[in-house]
Amino acid sequence: MSVLVVGSVAYDSIETPFGSRDEVVGGAATYFSLAASHFTDVHVVAAVGEDFGDEAMRVLDRSGIHLEGLERVPGKTFRWKGRYHYDLNERETLDTQLGVFERFEPRVPEGIRIPGFLFLANIDPVLQYDVMKQVERPRLIGCDTMNFWIEGKPKELARTLAEVDLLIINDSEARELAGEPNLVKAAGIIRRMGPRTLIVKRGEFGAASFFPEALFAVPALLLESVVDPTGAGDSFAGGVFGYLAANAGDGAIDERLMRRAIAMGCVMASFTVQSFGVEGLLDLTEDRIAERFAQFRALSHIEAE
Amino acid sequence: MSVLVVGSVAYDSIETPFGSRDEVVGGAATYFSLAASHFTDVHVVAAVGEDFGDEAMRVLDRSGIHLEGLERVPGKTFRWKGRYHYDLNERETLDTQLGVFERFEPRVPEGIRIPGFLFLANIDPVLQYDVMKQVERPRLIGCDTMNFWIEGKPKELARTLAEVDLLIINDSEARELAGEPNLVKAAGIIRRMGPRTLIVKRGEFGAASFFPEALFAVPALLLESVVDPTGAGDSFAGGVFGYLAANAGDGAIDERLMRRAIAMGCVMASFTVQSFGVEGLLDLTEDRIAERFAQFRALSHIEAE
Repeated sequence: MSVLVVGSVAYDSIETPFGSRDEVVGGAATYFSLAASHFTDVHVVAAVGEDFGDEAMRVLDRSGIHLEGLERVPGKTFRWKGRYHYDLNERETLDTQLGVFERFEPRVPEGIRIPGFLFLANIDPVLQYDVMKQVERPRLIGCDTMNFWIEGKPKELARTLAEVDLLIINDSEARELAGEPNLVKAAGIIRRMGPRTLIVKRGEFGAASFFPEALFAVPALLLESVVDPTGAGDSFAGGVFGYLAANAGDGAIDERLMRRAIAMGCVMASFTVQSFGVEGLLDLTEDRIAERFAQFRALSHIEAE
Repeated sequence: MSVLVVGSVAYDSIETPFGSRDEVVGGAATYFSLAASHFTDVHVVAAVGEDFGDEAMRVLDRSGIHLEGLERVPGKTFRWKGRYHYDLNERETLDTQLGVFERFEPRVPEGIRIPGFLFLANIDPVLQYDVMKQVERPRLIGCDTMNFWIEGKPKELARTLAEVDLLIINDSEARELAGEPNLVKAAGIIRRMGPRTLIVKRGEFGAASFFPEALFAVPALLLESVVDPTGAGDSFAGGVFGYLAANAGDGAIDERLMRRAIAMGCVMASFTVQSFGVEGLLDLTEDRIAERFAQFRALSHIEAE
């Protein structure tokens, strides 16, 4: 089954202690799509400006991402500039220029209005809701959000969450959304808002997941070289959705499959952080992904007595 | 086989958002011993003052901990007072009174100088070295340390580490000891200092371990109620050593066994943080420990396809 993602496509400028990149293609929808495209067909709905260059376009195009929903509109492409220090968990935003993203009104083209899987990357919850109404009910709807919307549009976010199956956010967002410092209690509160499954991204510490019947937690891979964490969370979501879409078949999306999908999310995030920008997601082979997946399973394995 | 631990026995005063306790028995050797005592015989070498009361003594005694190495000396027992906020990962030390701990010179009584397993809790590395010289070479020597010694006595610490098999410290200590922000690289540097195995404690995010041949990482259990993290790291070390001592038999302490021991360390730490002080380590049954161990294994389990 195919995946439809709605979100930002941007130009990022990144500084880390290990180097820098200027105006490289980024944005949540980009990382998500590139990660998911290793598993299944991905359609992206996003807007870029007149300045969005051929090189950036080729990055998406050569990965086989379907671009019929990528609108080119008058104005400049969304730009983000950020800096990381040695503690790569903390980032400093140096500049944000919304450009065409400020007036982004996602329109899902006719041909892709029956998506199997839909992921609403971090955009205004009003737009997330609007996208859900443009398509036939997908098999699974996932969503991301951030503190800005949790604080600024709580009612609109609640309306979106009521129709979402799977919410993927980070620790501090989960705690703020629930108004509860304990993560397990916070997960209970959030799941009563709508999403049957909550996945909490914990950066270099992996992910924690709250299913209807159980808890699941995994560490992140321990990597000798981490140069740029930009896009790790969106690559994670792309890995989860790509894997689910490719492997769910006609059966239920059960906990067993979800655990494997989350592991694949961690695998895709690990490729992202080892290179600048989206570089780590390009030119991956099926073998390299499978090898790292096996490595990830082995990392936490504890034998029975 | 039995475990010998050398470290502090103290009176702790603890404030957390969930309550407080005044002058309850604590200290690294106490938490370690109470955790390890559920698996094997534990001998403790420590010093307390004339003010160390019967009630505190009974906590150790009724847990079957061997106290022939617990010296009562003139002066006052080590006291620590601390406060935690909602982010239980950060603690604020309000007061420290070293008392008799200031002049602590550990003496291992004659009868316990052939320990199977030796754990040197966080004390001056000069004293840690001295203890190693008082005993016959144990099957396994473990050690903890802290930034205070890493910065203040680097040469003395290096001499101790050269004879240690297993070092158990937290993230920031590992990074500082190695002078390297990347944990995997830091582990390589530390293992070249002596310890074949490094275990890095990551608080609510579990533990990462670096063996000669492989990496191992586990999340911590996701708990609905965490009231006091005091002693979690020492309970973890006690669980690891207690489990190893009880299960190593005559065979090698291989990676398979070590993984299970680290999981048991996480289990014992989880009991500690759910109650104040040492309360969570008392009155545990074998069944409750086994049940939580099974829960811990299930937490991160990913099925093969």
